[in-house]
Amino acid sequence: MTALDAIAGTACAGTLYGIGVGPGDVRYLTLRAAALVRDVDVLAFFAKRGLQGNARGIVDPLLGPGRSELRLEYPVTDEIPPEHPSYQKQIACFYEESVATLAELLGQGKSVGLLAEGDPFFYGSFMHMWRRLNRDFPIEIVPGVTGMSGCWTRANAPITWGNDILSVLPGTLAEEQLTRRLAETDAAVIMKVGKNLAKVRRAVEAAGLLARAIYVERGTMQAEQIMPLSECPDGKGPYFSMVLIPGQGRRL
Amino acid sequence: MTALDAIAGTACAGTLYGIGVGPGDVRYLTLRAAALVRDVDVLAFFAKRGLQGNARGIVDPLLGPGRSELRLEYPVTDEIPPEHPSYQKQIACFYEESVATLAELLGQGKSVGLLAEGDPFFYGSFMHMWRRLNRDFPIEIVPGVTGMSGCWTRANAPITWGNDILSVLPGTLAEEQLTRRLAETDAAVIMKVGKNLAKVRRAVEAAGLLARAIYVERGTMQAEQIMPLSECPDGKGPYFSMVLIPGQGRRL
Repeated sequence: MTALDAIAGTACAGTLYGIGVGPGDVRYLTLRAAALVRDVDVLAFFAKRGLQGNARGIVDPLLGPGRSELRLEYPVTDEIPPEHPSYQKQIACFYEESVATLAELLGQGKSVGLLAEGDPFFYGSFMHMWRRLNRDFPIEIVPGVTGMSGCWTRANAPITWGNDILSVLPGTLAEEQLTRRLAETDAAVIMKVGKNLAKVRRAVEAAGLLARAIYVERGTMQAEQIMPLSECPDGKGPYFSMVLIPGQGRRL
Repeated sequence: MTALDAIAGTACAGTLYGIGVGPGDVRYLTLRAAALVRDVDVLAFFAKRGLQGNARGIVDPLLGPGRSELRLEYPVTDEIPPEHPSYQKQIACFYEESVATLAELLGQGKSVGLLAEGDPFFYGSFMHMWRRLNRDFPIEIVPGVTGMSGCWTRANAPITWGNDILSVLPGTLAEEQLTRRLAETDAAVIMKVGKNLAKVRRAVEAAGLLARAIYVERGTMQAEQIMPLSECPDGKGPYFSMVLIPGQGRRL
């Protein structure tokens, strides 16, 4: 055991770990997260049908053979919009089943690490497990570097200076609301750009911020793409895309 | 060299590293940050007069004896308010001197790691060095877990759900502005609470959010304190304190 291992610690029996795996680059896992990924009895992760699971892919370089894994596969992805009652019912049902599986493992005294992209408590699916298991089992949350930190790092764009206000806005907001909120903030991160790209760009332009806006896709991941929002073609916008408006607060 | 070391990589000659050291707990450094802290020729950090320097304190458990360090000591701290022209002039002058020192080391081919609390590009002093050195030297930014992530983790408070809007607000805002912005957001983090605690609480109460507000001081550090904002005595509020208003978005 090296000194770093001693600092990072190990996993305890019967405990659930919400492990933030950061924005995509495996080097941005924390010491605690990397130690747990290698030490828990069962490594659990969410994945969409037919895909490896993004969080699972991030930690792949850390894993040896023969690990016990638990793949929790979403029953729906893009076929139904998230606002649809059928989507919400199916996802809620899937979460209940996932909780039952996790609870059984924890009840057997296993340590279980559930991977979370970015930070577990910042728009994380992990939170839906946490709120169901929090009362019955010991849980440790390991905070992570958020996707947005990864994006502004790679875009070489300090996001907030001095007393800047930062607004984190979902791209799902109505165009007028997005415009108004952008016009009132010093710095902004627009998440969930995806299919909302054209609307997001109109809102950014209407708020007079197009010259400052940066489009980042898969920040810190292999297929990373960074460009001015003004030059980003309309067909763009996968799940891991966001728009950054860096602040212009006090420079000393 | 272990497998983890190979993943985390090493430092290059003549390169400046902006190393995010996370919120306070040394286990929340990233693999890349921990590797660089141990590998750079010179470890640089900002510190207030008479104090160790918070970022330097965080990485202490990782350091062996005989490291080359560069302490960059602020000429002023709390004696003059930051809005005062004299403060700004003295700090700008201090930054220029610090840049000259760093540039000399880099010019000699040394690798230099400048520590940054939390994430270097999120309200970081490092940014003031970065904007002066960015054109002349290779710089790598290592993103970090932000102080706010550390705080909501320890407060056991998921901060954003579903399509929640998050507002990051400085406690220095005027009371009415703070109240208005709090009333219009789904979730909030109020930074730089410190001396603004009484005003911040009045604003949170006026926005009808006092029941949800959590006060966190030195999150993830040794002297951590967490309590409902409503129970926090008025004398409270050191530099590393913030107020969290967790969102109430879609639970599935």
